[in-house]
Amino acid sequence: MNANLSKYVDYRASLGFLGSVIKYMAIPLAVPIAVALYYGESLVPFVVTLGVMLGVGVGLERLHSEPDLGHREGFLLVSLTWLVIPIVGAIPYLVAGEGTVAHPVNALFESMSGFTTTGSTVLGEISFERHSRSILMWRQLSQWLGGMGIVVLMVAILPELSVGGAQVMDAEAPGPSLEKLTPRIRDTAQALWRIYIGFTVAALAVYYGLHLAGVAPNMDFYNAVAHALTTMPTGGFSPEARSAEAFSPAIQWAITVFMIVAGTNFALFWYVLKGEPGRLTGNTEFRTYLTAMGVVGTVLATLLFVGIGLQTTPTNVGEIPGNLEHSLRQAAFQTAAIVTTTGYASMDFNTWDQSTQLILLFAMFLGGSAGSAAGSIKIIRWYLIQKTIVRELFTTVHPDAVRPLRLSDDVVDEGTVRGLFVFTMTFLLIFAVSAVVLYLDGLRTGVELSAIEAVSATIATLGNIGPGVGIVGPMNSFLPFSNAAKLYMVFLMWIGRLEILSVLVIFTPSYWGS
Amino acid sequence: MNANLSKYVDYRASLGFLGSVIKYMAIPLAVPIAVALYYGESLVPFVVTLGVMLGVGVGLERLHSEPDLGHREGFLLVSLTWLVIPIVGAIPYLVAGEGTVAHPVNALFESMSGFTTTGSTVLGEISFERHSRSILMWRQLSQWLGGMGIVVLMVAILPELSVGGAQVMDAEAPGPSLEKLTPRIRDTAQALWRIYIGFTVAALAVYYGLHLAGVAPNMDFYNAVAHALTTMPTGGFSPEARSAEAFSPAIQWAITVFMIVAGTNFALFWYVLKGEPGRLTGNTEFRTYLTAMGVVGTVLATLLFVGIGLQTTPTNVGEIPGNLEHSLRQAAFQTAAIVTTTGYASMDFNTWDQSTQLILLFAMFLGGSAGSAAGSIKIIRWYLIQKTIVRELFTTVHPDAVRPLRLSDDVVDEGTVRGLFVFTMTFLLIFAVSAVVLYLDGLRTGVELSAIEAVSATIATLGNIGPGVGIVGPMNSFLPFSNAAKLYMVFLMWIGRLEILSVLVIFTPSYWGS
Ligand SMILES: [K+]
Ligand SMILES: [K+]
Repeated sequence: MNANLSKYVDYRASLGFLGSVIKYMAIPLAVPIAVALYYGESLVPFVVTLGVMLGVGVGLERLHSEPDLGHREGFLLVSLTWLVIPIVGAIPYLVAGEGTVAHPVNALFESMSGFTTTGSTVLGEISFERHSRSILMWRQLSQWLGGMGIVVLMVAILPELSVGGAQVMDAEAPGPSLEKLTPRIRDTAQALWRIYIGFTVAALAVYYGLHLAGVAPNMDFYNAVAHALTTMPTGGFSPEARSAEAFSPAIQWAITVFMIVAGTNFALFWYVLKGEPGRLTGNTEFRTYLTAMGVVGTVLATLLFVGIGLQTTPTNVGEIPGNLEHSLRQAAFQTAAIVTTTGYASMDFNTWDQSTQLILLFAMFLGGSAGSAAGSIKIIRWYLIQKTIVRELFTTVHPDAVRPLRLSDDVVDEGTVRGLFVFTMTFLLIFAVSAVVLYLDGLRTGVELSAIEAVSATIATLGNIGPGVGIVGPMNSFLPFSNAAKLYMVFLMWIGRLEILSVLVIFTPSYWGS
Repeated sequence: MNANLSKYVDYRASLGFLGSVIKYMAIPLAVPIAVALYYGESLVPFVVTLGVMLGVGVGLERLHSEPDLGHREGFLLVSLTWLVIPIVGAIPYLVAGEGTVAHPVNALFESMSGFTTTGSTVLGEISFERHSRSILMWRQLSQWLGGMGIVVLMVAILPELSVGGAQVMDAEAPGPSLEKLTPRIRDTAQALWRIYIGFTVAALAVYYGLHLAGVAPNMDFYNAVAHALTTMPTGGFSPEARSAEAFSPAIQWAITVFMIVAGTNFALFWYVLKGEPGRLTGNTEFRTYLTAMGVVGTVLATLLFVGIGLQTTPTNVGEIPGNLEHSLRQAAFQTAAIVTTTGYASMDFNTWDQSTQLILLFAMFLGGSAGSAAGSIKIIRWYLIQKTIVRELFTTVHPDAVRPLRLSDDVVDEGTVRGLFVFTMTFLLIFAVSAVVLYLDGLRTGVELSAIEAVSATIATLGNIGPGVGIVGPMNSFLPFSNAAKLYMVFLMWIGRLEILSVLVIFTPSYWGS
């Protein structure tokens, strides 16, 4: 991507490229169509969508024939892609006309939640009585497609565009950069997609294998596909109303492992495949990520085990206090679900007490690794922010000392450090303002959110996590919000997914000027 | 202050200098002693304190005779001064044995709240029946002395020590730096003290003058002195249980003006005295400070005027909705009280509704000007953070552009920019963790804080503001907290007052090493 090719933004080039993306989105429609054929469900929602995708896609493609995109056109393409695809992707919900999601605002919310791998839902009732299997499969698939796009965006495109510290991955020697991985974005993308597809198939095999082995009665083939499709993108949608609570301990442990994989920098697996596993195990980000989950998980497991982490004793998941396996499993599952921003639930953590819920709420700000589909602020940024604070204390005492910031052995560019802080501060400012906006809208419309519930709904959507606590807890939905609040959260999911700054630039005058 | 004079920290030098500070603190004891003599109250609390100050002061002074302090010894001195003086300053409360403040933890809380100009109180009952006039005057005086120390610290000492962006004042051309103002710290201090004392006398004259003119019945000479002593340091302690609600509109307007003065960079007034008023009126920080207050105040006044900003209609301050003067006055007073971090109240804003209370809560993070006794994050940091975010968006679009950050005409050093972000992020992290600590402690001890109350108690103490909302509202107190929580807030007031990093450095190994 060449910088400043043209004097003004060539928006036709961005739209033309967007047309190709929309056109190719018609291919994955084969999945819900196959499901509909198998179960004898209506094909109309997907045929209509297919027509719209091909029509809009080919139409937009004609705007432009140049294969090359400039720097600024790249931003427009990225932002438009994650806005227009979710809009088109909402069509099946509207045409199907089943349940609460048939409303335009709800359909857009559910579709944006899917393609941004957020996993917040506005389905009033999740069941095969209310929704066809093919529509629910489209819902899972939207997360898988969104996650695929995000992994490529994070590893291959955003570092190129130098967005708010996204280039930090370049800084770490064992981590791959665009140049080191493969010479061209298309090759990088293909390498990453192979890894992503490989892990999806592996998850499917393990989930369904456990079912065939007799230790996962509820994990039939449909469920195995559905959950494999929403684990790898750290998505969290489930066709089960009670999420992973519906499954056996063996499945919950398996999902925990695959969530941890899904929150890891995918590019590191490329080195493992090349026979260099040390580049994964020695990677600073990977180690920090595991350490953070280890600390959060151990604290939660301890609180659950001794019994002070539970407010009410749930009857449907077995005794937890005093039971080591139950405490460990619930703690490990919820820690992985929150830190990787997947958002599955192995039990309703609304039954946890305020201390354990607040720990989960804090963990929502961590985020997984930079080269994955995980959302939120991300571990590597916190790691470097902490290092910068420690360095600032050192240079305050020793004003003449020069101390470059290092990640493993490489020096982190000071511009990247500033980008990290700018991103994190912008994220936190938007978070704080949005929590108040949602809280006040709740007061206005009588939703009666508590402050903590408003805070959790905000980080759940801005951080692309999915569920929050209380009214937006894992077994509840975002349905009670007003349409205005839902559209606001659609905006939060959109900008949160694209690292905020890559969307905000489009709204600056200097972007459109010469 | 010379950097790295010695290999290790010469803590005896810091302690020796601290001894001198403590010794000189005996002089202001003349004020409460005079009050006690006039009203025929006990002298014992102050005589005991006098003895301790002289004894400890002279004792510590003997540790060292060198007049020069190194860079690192400066940090130790600053931190110890704002820890040991509040401890010694708690003695009068303990010896007097009046009311709730006679308990050691409460005495330390009230004294730390005074010397850090915070203004949070643990007095269960504020009245002359419960507390002698001399003890209450000591409480007001502790804020005045603390404010005097802080102004010098902010303008003359911290920029020298290069603490977390505190040197930003140097960066602005019209603003003074140490070199430009006067050649030596002592001269700078004396110039600032004259301005500080001059405004205190002016406030006293206006407050008491309005009383003599018959438009301020309750503002007798004692009250005029007491409020002059707590306005200029942005302190907020009042011997009136209902704070500024006890006074006439004329007094409330006068206090509003003096609070705005108190939140202004004092060094700018030095230029005004030198006949260069343009250096005040053209100053970027001053203009941003006024603009911020103007925006917050206008929104609040509008919400109060149309009546949606009030939850319950208070009967003791007159009709507010529909009354222009009442709405304007309450909005202007509370805006100035919160943005300057003074913390007086012209009415109980617990009667305001959630929207207006949340606006106040947000305004608590603004803070006044850098060269004043105001606490919290401070306007200039937000101004530069906002400029940095805008620049980051620009350079994201134009990656080849070089754009130094400017404050007025001067370029802001990139190290200073980083220092700003590091400070603000550290402040926000400590704030977030502390809010949870206080919230959980409230659950543990049955104080029953709401999340918003815990948040407001945290920013009220860490930001040296004073009152929060709800249980810690302006007409309530911090008495219900556990001793552990009170000691934790003593810590927050201490580090918040000293710009956090100048205390934290002392806890790093590199500070004590060679
Ligand atoms: K998610
Ligand atoms: K204050």
